[in-house]
Amino acid sequence: MAERIAFFGELLLRLTTPGHELLLQSPSLSVHVGGAEANVAVGLASLGHDTRMISRVADNPLGRAAIGEIRRHGVDCATISTSDGRMGLYFLTVGAGWRASEVVYDRAGSAFAAADPASWDWDSLLKGCTRLHLSGITPALGHDPAAAAIAAAEAAQAKGLTVSFDGNYRARLWEAWDSKPREILTKLVSLTDILFGNHRDISLLLDEPFSGDGPARRREAAEAAFGAFPRLRYIASTARQADGADSNRIAARIDTPDTFEQTDEIEISSIVDRIGAGDAFAAGVLHGLLDGLSLEQTVQAGLALTALKHSLPGDASLFTRADLAAFEAGGRDVRR
Amino acid sequence: MAERIAFFGELLLRLTTPGHELLLQSPSLSVHVGGAEANVAVGLASLGHDTRMISRVADNPLGRAAIGEIRRHGVDCATISTSDGRMGLYFLTVGAGWRASEVVYDRAGSAFAAADPASWDWDSLLKGCTRLHLSGITPALGHDPAAAAIAAAEAAQAKGLTVSFDGNYRARLWEAWDSKPREILTKLVSLTDILFGNHRDISLLLDEPFSGDGPARRREAAEAAFGAFPRLRYIASTARQADGADSNRIAARIDTPDTFEQTDEIEISSIVDRIGAGDAFAAGVLHGLLDGLSLEQTVQAGLALTALKHSLPGDASLFTRADLAAFEAGGRDVRR
Amino acid sequence: MAERIAFFGELLLRLTTPGHELLLQSPSLSVHVGGAEANVAVGLASLGHDTRMISRVADNPLGRAAIGEIRRHGVDCATISTSDGRMGLYFLTVGAGWRASEVVYDRAGSAFAAADPASWDWDSLLKGCTRLHLSGITPALGHDPAAAAIAAAEAAQAKGLTVSFDGNYRARLWEAWDSKPREILTKLVSLTDILFGNHRDISLLLDEPFSGDGPARRREAAEAAFGAFPRLRYIASTARQADGADSNRIAARIDTPDTFEQTDEIEISSIVDRIGAGDAFAAGVLHGLLDGLSLEQTVQAGLALTALKHSLPGDASLFTRADLAAFEAGGRDVRR
Amino acid sequence: MAERIAFFGELLLRLTTPGHELLLQSPSLSVHVGGAEANVAVGLASLGHDTRMISRVADNPLGRAAIGEIRRHGVDCATISTSDGRMGLYFLTVGAGWRASEVVYDRAGSAFAAADPASWDWDSLLKGCTRLHLSGITPALGHDPAAAAIAAAEAAQAKGLTVSFDGNYRARLWEAWDSKPREILTKLVSLTDILFGNHRDISLLLDEPFSGDGPARRREAAEAAFGAFPRLRYIASTARQADGADSNRIAARIDTPDTFEQTDEIEISSIVDRIGAGDAFAAGVLHGLLDGLSLEQTVQAGLALTALKHSLPGDASLFTRADLAAFEAGGRDVRR
Amino acid sequence: MAERIAFFGELLLRLTTPGHELLLQSPSLSVHVGGAEANVAVGLASLGHDTRMISRVADNPLGRAAIGEIRRHGVDCATISTSDGRMGLYFLTVGAGWRASEVVYDRAGSAFAAADPASWDWDSLLKGCTRLHLSGITPALGHDPAAAAIAAAEAAQAKGLTVSFDGNYRARLWEAWDSKPREILTKLVSLTDILFGNHRDISLLLDEPFSGDGPARRREAAEAAFGAFPRLRYIASTARQADGADSNRIAARIDTPDTFEQTDEIEISSIVDRIGAGDAFAAGVLHGLLDGLSLEQTVQAGLALTALKHSLPGDASLFTRADLAAFEAGGRDVRR
Amino acid sequence: MAERIAFFGELLLRLTTPGHELLLQSPSLSVHVGGAEANVAVGLASLGHDTRMISRVADNPLGRAAIGEIRRHGVDCATISTSDGRMGLYFLTVGAGWRASEVVYDRAGSAFAAADPASWDWDSLLKGCTRLHLSGITPALGHDPAAAAIAAAEAAQAKGLTVSFDGNYRARLWEAWDSKPREILTKLVSLTDILFGNHRDISLLLDEPFSGDGPARRREAAEAAFGAFPRLRYIASTARQADGADSNRIAARIDTPDTFEQTDEIEISSIVDRIGAGDAFAAGVLHGLLDGLSLEQTVQAGLALTALKHSLPGDASLFTRADLAAFEAGGRDVRR
Repeated sequence: MAERIAFFGELLLRLTTPGHELLLQSPSLSVHVGGAEANVAVGLASLGHDTRMISRVADNPLGRAAIGEIRRHGVDCATISTSDGRMGLYFLTVGAGWRASEVVYDRAGSAFAAADPASWDWDSLLKGCTRLHLSGITPALGHDPAAAAIAAAEAAQAKGLTVSFDGNYRARLWEAWDSKPREILTKLVSLTDILFGNHRDISLLLDEPFSGDGPARRREAAEAAFGAFPRLRYIASTARQADGADSNRIAARIDTPDTFEQTDEIEISSIVDRIGAGDAFAAGVLHGLLDGLSLEQTVQAGLALTALKHSLPGDASLFTRADLAAFEAGGRDVRR
Repeated sequence: MAERIAFFGELLLRLTTPGHELLLQSPSLSVHVGGAEANVAVGLASLGHDTRMISRVADNPLGRAAIGEIRRHGVDCATISTSDGRMGLYFLTVGAGWRASEVVYDRAGSAFAAADPASWDWDSLLKGCTRLHLSGITPALGHDPAAAAIAAAEAAQAKGLTVSFDGNYRARLWEAWDSKPREILTKLVSLTDILFGNHRDISLLLDEPFSGDGPARRREAAEAAFGAFPRLRYIASTARQADGADSNRIAARIDTPDTFEQTDEIEISSIVDRIGAGDAFAAGVLHGLLDGLSLEQTVQAGLALTALKHSLPGDASLFTRADLAAFEAGGRDVRR
Repeated sequence: MAERIAFFGELLLRLTTPGHELLLQSPSLSVHVGGAEANVAVGLASLGHDTRMISRVADNPLGRAAIGEIRRHGVDCATISTSDGRMGLYFLTVGAGWRASEVVYDRAGSAFAAADPASWDWDSLLKGCTRLHLSGITPALGHDPAAAAIAAAEAAQAKGLTVSFDGNYRARLWEAWDSKPREILTKLVSLTDILFGNHRDISLLLDEPFSGDGPARRREAAEAAFGAFPRLRYIASTARQADGADSNRIAARIDTPDTFEQTDEIEISSIVDRIGAGDAFAAGVLHGLLDGLSLEQTVQAGLALTALKHSLPGDASLFTRADLAAFEAGGRDVRR
Repeated sequence: MAERIAFFGELLLRLTTPGHELLLQSPSLSVHVGGAEANVAVGLASLGHDTRMISRVADNPLGRAAIGEIRRHGVDCATISTSDGRMGLYFLTVGAGWRASEVVYDRAGSAFAAADPASWDWDSLLKGCTRLHLSGITPALGHDPAAAAIAAAEAAQAKGLTVSFDGNYRARLWEAWDSKPREILTKLVSLTDILFGNHRDISLLLDEPFSGDGPARRREAAEAAFGAFPRLRYIASTARQADGADSNRIAARIDTPDTFEQTDEIEISSIVDRIGAGDAFAAGVLHGLLDGLSLEQTVQAGLALTALKHSLPGDASLFTRADLAAFEAGGRDVRR
Repeated sequence: MAERIAFFGELLLRLTTPGHELLLQSPSLSVHVGGAEANVAVGLASLGHDTRMISRVADNPLGRAAIGEIRRHGVDCATISTSDGRMGLYFLTVGAGWRASEVVYDRAGSAFAAADPASWDWDSLLKGCTRLHLSGITPALGHDPAAAAIAAAEAAQAKGLTVSFDGNYRARLWEAWDSKPREILTKLVSLTDILFGNHRDISLLLDEPFSGDGPARRREAAEAAFGAFPRLRYIASTARQADGADSNRIAARIDTPDTFEQTDEIEISSIVDRIGAGDAFAAGVLHGLLDGLSLEQTVQAGLALTALKHSLPGDASLFTRADLAAFEAGGRDVRR
Repeated sequence: MAERIAFFGELLLRLTTPGHELLLQSPSLSVHVGGAEANVAVGLASLGHDTRMISRVADNPLGRAAIGEIRRHGVDCATISTSDGRMGLYFLTVGAGWRASEVVYDRAGSAFAAADPASWDWDSLLKGCTRLHLSGITPALGHDPAAAAIAAAEAAQAKGLTVSFDGNYRARLWEAWDSKPREILTKLVSLTDILFGNHRDISLLLDEPFSGDGPARRREAAEAAFGAFPRLRYIASTARQADGADSNRIAARIDTPDTFEQTDEIEISSIVDRIGAGDAFAAGVLHGLLDGLSLEQTVQAGLALTALKHSLPGDASLFTRADLAAFEAGGRDVRR
């Protein structure tokens, strides 16, 4: 049966300063549509996979435009509803060299975050899907989104869908309300088949330190996670070294209960847009799994898509299979 | 004694679509800083008057940038404080011809609207000022802003300041909470010396219809207001006929208890930016009163500044006395 | 049964000069996706109708981006295929005042124009549709597109679909090959239920002059057409007077075999983008028919959508039902 | 013999605010190259005439870029030399509606204005030319440019060239030094065959009032000029009524010693760029004379080119003979 | 005798995505005029050499604008004619880091490619020229352009001109028709004095592998070419290593029958625009030969101009002798 | 007592080419306000210090806009006066890689440079200030500015202010008039407490070579300066190595009579804007001294602010204390 992947999460508008300026240094902003889960959906749709976004946006021109942007890239948006409320925003100041990029969030009170958990009809929303992808952003937004995410994962499990979950731990979001992140995340990971997260995420889940950065320590953390969460089949992660705002090094890794694959570290200089690079990695790995690639090919696909994403403005990977093939083939001179 | 005018109100960021596009039709927005009271402050500062803005902005780069924009035009911003919370935003789609411009507000939960009324120390904030200008936007934002506006007006009255108040009735804002607009506005107008508002505003205050549009009916409404609010000395208003989104006709009028002045209607075509045109009118009238101009000159100054504002991008009038003089002198061909 | 409307035609890229400049006066161009039939599809999708585009684009990033733009607005694009060849382009220099806008076509040899008529599987492409919309652009592109358009209309008739056809007579296209426009158009109109075209189009079809511009002459032409083409139920047209490049007057009219409705002429000044105004009129009329509006309401919807289109950059109407309602309600001042 | 027209004057850089903003309201400026005489040269070159620019620019990248812009439009620039000094600049704030456009000049001390009159080798510079065009800007720049302009006209007369001269009276320039405008201009007009100027220019020359605006008064002034300057064969002028910054009315007129032609007044709304409209008129009239058109056709060509220029960004008319023909043919709807 | 260099080839319009975006990711494109031979012409004209472009463009505003851009930089364009047909275009997506830049060609059917070989009157076109420069792009466009290129080279040889030829082998162009590249290129190189090409080009010509990359292998290839083509006096080439889309290493080399000069490899990071870098190298080498520089200075001039070109937007080198001198002098800090 | 720092110097407008283009390659320029002393003032104001700018600008919209830009960042501008004359300008072409950035100055005859030294009332201008900052730009502008700078320093000394002076030696400015730089600079440095300058500046002052680049040689130069100028307490300098136009290495150092601190060299790649980096260093050092930081912390603050400045468009550092803290904390990945 052909796979169809559902994504549940918030659509956000990103407002970015031009030319490495500070906010309002000059009076214009560019706008992109993003969201951790939508970015993965767009990344997979661009590779030709059948994707569906489940979300809620403000019933205003901004919300409708956000849907249009996701749909443009081929994601099925019929399962995005609208309601009163506002769109979540974030403002991005793009750094350079010794100055890090900075995000100012303005997402409180969004139509998505305020949605009643009972308003999501999972049976209908997941109909025809074989997979569900979630991230740790949604449960971090408050009681209702957390309840919705858990309900989604439970419904998916009940219907036999494969669940993937990207930790995306954001302390600032969890700390903004009376949250119990370990409890909620443990619940979600227990429903997860494919986890995107590193040893720090696993530390948080298991309340156990895995502070070393070496491959052995990472394997140790992965094995602990596989032990604690028997449903887990894959743990995928990247290790990023940010030498400067526009020059990073990155390596990728996938662990299974039995083995792991780790890529060499590659250098990513002249970064155009680092936002969404983690989501592109998730899309690349899911692409490998959907296509039945080997573990090594799968982690390479993840690395390739995250490397390519750094070269592209916007939140999501828009690369095609031809782009992946060109990356693998090598050759960075003009193609003509 | 030289006059110094204090303004109390919210600073907003306006995000505008380029080239008459719909929201996010293309991925960029221009940004302006506005706010009904700040617009009047900038308008008067540009004419050389001594102005002070009293406000509260988000303690983030957006809030600090908003202060910078107001300060750039010469308004004293030492009385703008910062606090947790967000900046109020609004998105503007610029119409043309048969399509009206449209505002999507996203201002709920702003640092200004959430400010504790007790946090404003009016004695200190108004020190050295001879006038206070308020508008009906502030009390429409909720219980706390309404209480703050009334406290400001009371403090001003107690200290002998002249109070001006621009009705700026926005049903949508009042209807968003359990408001009693007539009660609050009546309180505020009873503390007002100079009212910007037309017969519809007076109808609302007095719960009495003045539906006719003729000058006689307008005078009738003004006299009723002067009767009901003995402190009132001036009522200034414009009559606007929007023939198209970028082509309007407008006339201006000032009533005193004893007399009135009404200008001819002028045609304003090729409108560049209609936002803040009412605030520019208020700035022009206040300019006339501050300079001790005749009633006729004063209403002409109001008409001139509002006419000029339509030609200028952004929320506020940035015109100088030289610009006003050039307007009066006539001649619309290139000046060189 | 809910209606689904299929559209068959070419997707074009429009490259427009900035700020009324001549081509390459400064080195940038803006890009829009259009095409007479796609514009109507987007116009109806924006009003909430169920639409499907049938087309063929170049199998390259330009072709895929063109699909994305149409899909963004909610048109079903699963029936757009790709093939070798290029995308048709046109360059637009935007006039002003006494200078007319000018189009330089560069559409020869496009993937669409070169498509083998046998490559369109009408049974499958029209499945589930209740209507088919065509225009006179497609048959003007050459033998193959003309054959495809006729085959589409015949298949539609055979399957019981309502066929609408917009004359869109472009002499330059017909004259570029050994065409027999009257023969081909006569065939197509004989398969048509709803014709968009005026007395000049009917003259061409019937080889009979209807040169007068008065309503009586227009009625005479319509009656002749209804006589010649018994399947025709509606003939809709506009009368445009271009006083300047950015100031036109326009009136709309629908004839049925029994009666007609003609609107007053309205003045459209400050034109932002005149391209696609005729397609917007077609969308408005089809909207009225799809919604079962009265003939008067229907012609008003056509007039409203064409009037609004002049205010919007790009080739297609993106207006919603709320926008149509606002147009009818009147009031051109800022909505806030 | 084919005609070649020489132009002597300064090249200026114009820096224009975007979107009707005030200077530095936002941090960008667009740049155009102009100059009264260069504008006429470019206007005629665009119509296919053989033109040569005689000038001097700063020996820096700005000067070289200015030459490039003129050369791009087909003017022979081999007779433009470079020297120490700066480029003359002017800043343009584009008005709208009730706000006039404004020029801030920053042209003092330019390489052109500082050129030694002896540095111009008129024999060589005018070689092969049949005409010389000058304007009143050059002599207004100071003693040296005035001497150079007179020497140029004398050399032209000596070599049998036809001399045209556009008054372009700018009080501000003449008043900036110890000038004797009447004396200098009288000298220049006495060497002139074709004068561009109206009754006010003639008043200045003859020290005689021609204040009325009616055609009779204009004829009276023209006849006085023909009497005083026996070499004069044509006096061409426009009458402009600036109803608003972007809406003017204009009529054109040519007087000969024996007769005159005056056009109807036309309305020019939606003005895109009014700068250089007078130079475009001069180009149109010279085009008519070069092509041997009738007096009526000549004044119509002048009116057409000035009308078209208002629709085009930049200082010079870039219109072709095809554009002139299209103007005459009428029809302001999109050409496609 | 002063040298005048003729260039024969097509003018193309390049349409480039903004800010490293994919095609139509946002709706604007920047436009540059290029073409392998025109780039060399502009590069040499910017260095003060006397150049003439021989080409044919579409008889439309795009074609005329392309001429204007070349003329702006000082190339004699009187030998560019116009004809029916279209302008060749190419779309450039600018890569970054791990993503290579990509060209989508849309040049089929251009006015240049469709020109009848008999329509070029080489006697007249080459009059007064001492050199002719061609590239391998022109013969790759089809039978007619190949015939024209050979005729041009033959005419040049007959008239005693020095012929330079840049291989510019593009497999995609040759494969689009029933071409015999070795035969055509062998004919052209046999008429060539100065060849731009590396060991891969020579392999193709001689049907002999020179696959090694070391200097010895390169010398071997050069000697084979000098043996096969006795007219050849110089073979110039670069070796480029594309570490990333915006970071390359490059070395340059010139072989003569007797000796060779090879530069050190330099690193070119922060590449702004890599297009035309090979043409800039050719311009630099020709500049050295025209100025009679030593072989070492000549290859350095080639390296310098290609290095500088990477820093400049657009297809052609616009650098002056002062820029070359500054490059040689070193010092990359701000010059002020 | 709280510190207030006065700055005396010229405000300049910078006009910058877009996207690494050459001047007027495309027709737009961005505009920034700068000036060596104003840049330090804005840098310190952004860090929360109390600053006052003393200057004179043209009495035109450009001059007034320049004031607005400085005031926007919180500098007290009440001591900036206006007068006849022009604004000083400079044009910046932004290099890349192997091409250095280049400045074309157009600052002669500015209102500031032409100001009568007697027109500065130092008693009033310096009232309430505890420090005065000057740079070597001002005395290099001519006799009058030199006299004004000396008078300012003398008045400051007389009033007990701490004087800081940034050498900023620009040979081109000094050579443009009959200047005696050593004499004037010696006078100024003898009035200075804190000198920004390196061994080359000291060589010039003492007419003694300190050509070596090693730390020992630098210390030797510093000790010689402390010996010659007994008032001097700090000498601060950077050592910059420009590997490419957008990739530099830099180290910072402060000497006191007794000791010194020198930082490690850091690499600054992906330079966004190198202009004003020296002024940002001065602001960082003064910030350390104002805050009473240790010598090591102070030189680090200078290094941090200059490193950060390279990432920011415009002439001045706009960084806050939070930005400095983030720099020290490390971490260049997105902050969110």
